[in-house]
Formats: sequence, structure tokens, C-alpha cells
Amino acid sequence: MALIEPFDDAYFMKKALMEAETAFDLGEIPVGAVITVNNTIIARAHNLTERLNDVTAHAEMQAITAAANYLGGKYLTDCTLYVTLEPCQMCGGALYWSQLSRIVYAAADPNRGYKNLGTQLHPKTQVTSGILETEASALLKRFFIQRRNLN
Amino acid sequence: MALIEPFDDAYFMKKALMEAETAFDLGEIPVGAVITVNNTIIARAHNLTERLNDVTAHAEMQAITAAANYLGGKYLTDCTLYVTLEPCQMCGGALYWSQLSRIVYAAADPNRGYKNLGTQLHPKTQVTSGILETEASALLKRFFIQRRNLN
Repeated sequence: MALIEPFDDAYFMKKALMEAETAFDLGEIPVGAVITVNNTIIARAHNLTERLNDVTAHAEMQAITAAANYLGGKYLTDCTLYVTLEPCQMCGGALYWSQLSRIVYAAADPNRGYKNLGTQLHPKTQVTSGILETEASALLKRFFIQRRNLN
Repeated sequence: MALIEPFDDAYFMKKALMEAETAFDLGEIPVGAVITVNNTIIARAHNLTERLNDVTAHAEMQAITAAANYLGGKYLTDCTLYVTLEPCQMCGGALYWSQLSRIVYAAADPNRGYKNLGTQLHPKTQVTSGILETEASALLKRFFIQRRNLN
């Protein structure tokens, strides 16, 4: 009998989605992230660009800073980032410097995402996409519909 | 008789170079930045990636955060960034989000700079390069020679 693996990508992406929901409740574009090492979460963050008045306060940037702080070193070579939206150029560039082992993202961002813009990731970084994509996209759509109706 | 303009690009780049020298003295890769509005400096920063154990602590990132904090808004549409080294993908991406008016950099960075890596800046952002390039490059070279000799 095969054991069920409790800590799969969907498990951690759900945690990132919970962060995105917190951002939603704050009126922030709902993007959330967690960073893990050996199936343990060492950083959680959500987008705070409005609250902090700071374009650099994306979920990924805060998670990178928090994870490095936890580890006591700036390189995240054994870490996996789970994020509900494809990272942008800025976050892709930060992930390059961090030498992160793996990126898992939910929804794609064809216009602002690192992929179509050709941002260079670290050669050691592996990428998985589409995990809980439907849930992450639905939350983003709900946010933008609500914001349109408020304006 | 023409008046001499005291606040030209070289004037502010010298201030950015002073920041880079502070980084040098701390054992940080010597890159410095200032952000101005109407010829007034509203943010100064230097690279602190080692001190803060944080790959996101580039001079530009800190300057963007500080300038937005000073202005009380996250967009830097009327601001000029002076930085001693060509911004990387991460910083280029952050500058994109900030909608900065103008970037002035000293030394080019053909391998890690935003230009050769094709990072997209905001369409409204103008770029000037090569201001005090010799001084900025000399400081960087001095740093790397010193570091090589210490190891």
C-alpha cells in the first residue's frame, strides 16, 4: 500500500492561497507566497504594496527577505517558493540572486510575468506551474471585478 | 554670461558615489544611489546585501522604498535615480513598477545589467548613462582586487 504524501505541492500552494486571501481582505492585489525547506514553511508573505506604499513589497520579495533572515544566510539554494501568481521581472530578478532551488506558481501572468518578458532565472532554479491555478485565478478575478464595481 | 548650473547630473552622481564609498568601507560591493525630485535629494542608499544577509538589499531597492516613504506614495513619476552601476533585472523591474521619470547610471554592467538581459523599463522612463563612469568603475575594480587578495 502506497502512503499518501501529505506535503505535496498542492498542500503548500494552499498555504500560499491563504496568504493571498489575507491580501484580498486588506484591499491588496491578492498574491500570496510561502517558502519551504524540507517540507517546512520558513516564510509566509502577501502582497502589501498599497499598505506599505511601496512597489517593492510583492509577496515574493518579502518572503525572500524573511527566509534569508530565518536561515541566517542570503542564499536560498535548498528552498522552494510557492506563489499564487507567476513572478514579475523584479521578483524573478530577486529569485535569480537568491539561487533558489525551485519555484512553484499557480496562475500565469502573460503580460507582467517573468517568462514572456524573458527575465533570467538562476540556472539551478527549477520551475513548476499550474498548481491550484483555477483557485488562484478566481481570487484575482474576484478582486478586480470588486475593485471595478467600487470605482 | 551663462550661469553655471550647480545641480547637474555629475553633481548628484557624486553624491551616489559617496554612498558607494560607504558601501566599500563596509565590505559591500560598492554601489550607491540617490533619488531626486526638482534637484532635491529625497533618498540615499548603498548596497547592503552582506550586512543584511538579503539579496534584495541593492542600493536602488532601498532608495525606491525610501523615496516612496518620503513622498507618501508609491509612484516616483517625477523622480530621477542616480546610481553608480547599471541596475540589474530586479532593480529594473522595481523601477518599472515605480514609473520613475529618469534613470542616470555611471558604469555599465554588461553581464548582469538590465539592458543586455532585456528587462522592460516603464515606457515613460528615460535613461542616461556614463556619468562619472570612470570613477564608479575604478571603485568597483578596487573592491574586487582587494577582495581577491584577501581570499
